[in-house]
Amino acid sequence: MTVADQPQEFDVLVLGGGSAGYAAALRSVQHGLTVGLIEKDKLGGTCLHWGCIPTKAYLHSAELADEARNSEKYGVKMNFEGVDMAKVREYKDGIVAGKYKGLSGLLKMRKVTVISGEGKLVSENEIEVDGTRYTGKNIVLATGSTSKTFGLPLSKKIITSTEALKLDYTPKSAIVLGGGVIGCEFASAWTSFGTEVTIIEGLPSLVPNEDPSIVKQLERTFKKRGITFNTGTFFNEVKETDDGVKVTLEDGKTFEAEICLVAVGRGAVTEGFGFEDQGITLDRGFVITDERLHTGVGNIYAIGDIVPGLQLAHRGYQQGIFVAEEIAGNNPMIVEDINIPKVTYCEPEIMSVGYTQPAAEEKFGKDQIEITEYNLAGNGKSSILGTGGLIKMVGVKGGPIVGVHGIGTRIGEQVGEAQLIVNWEAYPEDVATLLHAHPTQNEAMGEAAMALFGHPLHG
Amino acid sequence: MTVADQPQEFDVLVLGGGSAGYAAALRSVQHGLTVGLIEKDKLGGTCLHWGCIPTKAYLHSAELADEARNSEKYGVKMNFEGVDMAKVREYKDGIVAGKYKGLSGLLKMRKVTVISGEGKLVSENEIEVDGTRYTGKNIVLATGSTSKTFGLPLSKKIITSTEALKLDYTPKSAIVLGGGVIGCEFASAWTSFGTEVTIIEGLPSLVPNEDPSIVKQLERTFKKRGITFNTGTFFNEVKETDDGVKVTLEDGKTFEAEICLVAVGRGAVTEGFGFEDQGITLDRGFVITDERLHTGVGNIYAIGDIVPGLQLAHRGYQQGIFVAEEIAGNNPMIVEDINIPKVTYCEPEIMSVGYTQPAAEEKFGKDQIEITEYNLAGNGKSSILGTGGLIKMVGVKGGPIVGVHGIGTRIGEQVGEAQLIVNWEAYPEDVATLLHAHPTQNEAMGEAAMALFGHPLHG
Repeated sequence: MTVADQPQEFDVLVLGGGSAGYAAALRSVQHGLTVGLIEKDKLGGTCLHWGCIPTKAYLHSAELADEARNSEKYGVKMNFEGVDMAKVREYKDGIVAGKYKGLSGLLKMRKVTVISGEGKLVSENEIEVDGTRYTGKNIVLATGSTSKTFGLPLSKKIITSTEALKLDYTPKSAIVLGGGVIGCEFASAWTSFGTEVTIIEGLPSLVPNEDPSIVKQLERTFKKRGITFNTGTFFNEVKETDDGVKVTLEDGKTFEAEICLVAVGRGAVTEGFGFEDQGITLDRGFVITDERLHTGVGNIYAIGDIVPGLQLAHRGYQQGIFVAEEIAGNNPMIVEDINIPKVTYCEPEIMSVGYTQPAAEEKFGKDQIEITEYNLAGNGKSSILGTGGLIKMVGVKGGPIVGVHGIGTRIGEQVGEAQLIVNWEAYPEDVATLLHAHPTQNEAMGEAAMALFGHPLHG
Repeated sequence: MTVADQPQEFDVLVLGGGSAGYAAALRSVQHGLTVGLIEKDKLGGTCLHWGCIPTKAYLHSAELADEARNSEKYGVKMNFEGVDMAKVREYKDGIVAGKYKGLSGLLKMRKVTVISGEGKLVSENEIEVDGTRYTGKNIVLATGSTSKTFGLPLSKKIITSTEALKLDYTPKSAIVLGGGVIGCEFASAWTSFGTEVTIIEGLPSLVPNEDPSIVKQLERTFKKRGITFNTGTFFNEVKETDDGVKVTLEDGKTFEAEICLVAVGRGAVTEGFGFEDQGITLDRGFVITDERLHTGVGNIYAIGDIVPGLQLAHRGYQQGIFVAEEIAGNNPMIVEDINIPKVTYCEPEIMSVGYTQPAAEEKFGKDQIEITEYNLAGNGKSSILGTGGLIKMVGVKGGPIVGVHGIGTRIGEQVGEAQLIVNWEAYPEDVATLLHAHPTQNEAMGEAAMALFGHPLHG
């Protein structure tokens, strides 16, 4: 189909084909609306091509490498001979290609008009792409995010996650700037691949948004895994040396390694799209909306990583669906960021939803909160997997469970039950009186609820 | 402590220290009751020593062996050299020993009086152990189950699961009599260990209690894994031959292998304990109770595998807790068997809770039911793990989700969210409007709910 053959007027015109944008498109056509979806690069965006999916493929290879190293104690005889990064890339590329094909096919099948090129908002209901003006009765901005670099001189040795996923070798050593989700995931995978990793985090701890009990357990386990980290001091300078990189902190301490991954957060991609010219408010690059994701200009909405808050693919999906429902007049329910489930896929995995203990204490009052920590040492399946860790529940006294947090090998999958508990405002007894299958890691959720209810079984 | 030093009168006297019995004991002391717990063998019973825990340890070694065989495509170079069954046993024994020590310590710490020996019910409130009479204001029968053998001549080559867990070699070939949970778990583990396995199941399919969609997927995957099975004809004879075993079916077909595992179900262990002499009703060996687990005699309750229904450790725990709460006067809620989560830990794993499609059609009427099947091919994390499979939800039209079923590698852990959905009688929209973390297998639960609600996202 050439550009001239394409429709140019739509009920909904979406700028950006990442998780948020394509979800808005797919849900809109389900409501009988015509949709144009503008994408300058690849449908699927960061999540599919340079984010969630490829990193989790890496982390699965990393898991297998760890298992290979430790397999003897499980009675499985194998000779671990190392990691072939070219093959890991090939595996990762295969997964991405399959999903990309699936998504492209789905959009086509559902009759979303995909418009290739860079769009610019030129009026309240028009976006121009390569000289052609497309009209939308409603416009949805979903231009996504990119790695922040704070002006660091990116090179072959100073890279972001996008370049890190393209490496076809395992660096001997790496400095990871930033101990958040992305930093910890790469630190974890590289360590499993045999790289000597040092994390530099300016805030006082790794994964500083997580509950303190989770942080403590992660730091302890990372230390055991041989991951070095320096927290509480920001970096001052990063530069290439003859044989690698050198990072200098604000206190003068220096670190050297073969490469440096810059994982200091992700900024909104909103420059050059004409947003402000049309009266849309930006704050440090992010698009400001009301709680129903309306920008306050015409029928223009914003969704995904350009909206301040959690930068997560599933938040993007949900906002895409939300806006589609809103446009269709279905008055959808708002899900607040605090109730969105989060998983960090390092080893050990972290999952969380709702309030951390300190956040709950601040919100509800310190004496109104009760907490329980169930140690995975008491969980049969976790022992079988050889993992330590914990499930922590935060409850309001005499009231609902408002936070569930966990850490341990494979614990991320528990976030499903966790988010139902928090979103449905379950009381401990609502969970404690039900059965959890034995022997699963899921049992630990039941034990934690029983403990919060006052009667642990195995605790 | 010698027998003479032990207390002999208790508020609650429990016969049997397996999952059901020890749960009753632990919860009773939490309510301030004195408890005697009689066990003739090992605290923890079948589940800990010869059931759930050791088989799942085996299945984890099996998983590692499969991963070792397939690791090359993930870029992890290793040379798979086989399975060392003595080491697998050692690993399994270590897990069991650790849990056994934990349980024994917990019972001691909580001041449960453990009485070693075989008990016999001699009156409505007395059990005699080795000539000493112990009194309980309440008596709880929890004598458990054992492998049925239908009179087959057990030997070194014709064995039950208990003996199978003690093997220190990998049989070249095995016939598994029975394609239920235990049969499929052993068939799966042995196949991963390198044994050529044939399953004989008299009913028309493997795991005949599961939803037909799950059955179909399991049979397809087992076939791909090289597991042979013959369904729909019962066996007639099993006998040893010079170099193994020979099984003859009712239609005359014969199968030969090195060993034969008899996995044709588990019967209640209720003989010789004096139950019937005290007026307790048995039916085919099972103890008949009312829906509150009371036997109808004195203050005598029965719990766990001796009560007709699902033979699962977590049902035993729950019944133990239930009876303890009942004795304490707390009027606990009944959880019906249909709402108990179930996991089969073969590869691929199976999880289910609530009604299968046929059961729902029978209960609610065929035209009152709607179903959705979400194929794991659309789930990113499942693709990363290299697994196919599905999540199936069964809903009442305009009403709640009444059944959730799944099959796929590691899918068992999804049963936590599944059981909340079914037990809390959630409507599809209650789940569909919430967020599932990307990229997890858990997302497939959200997609299935969205599909049942009428709007799949990626489907």
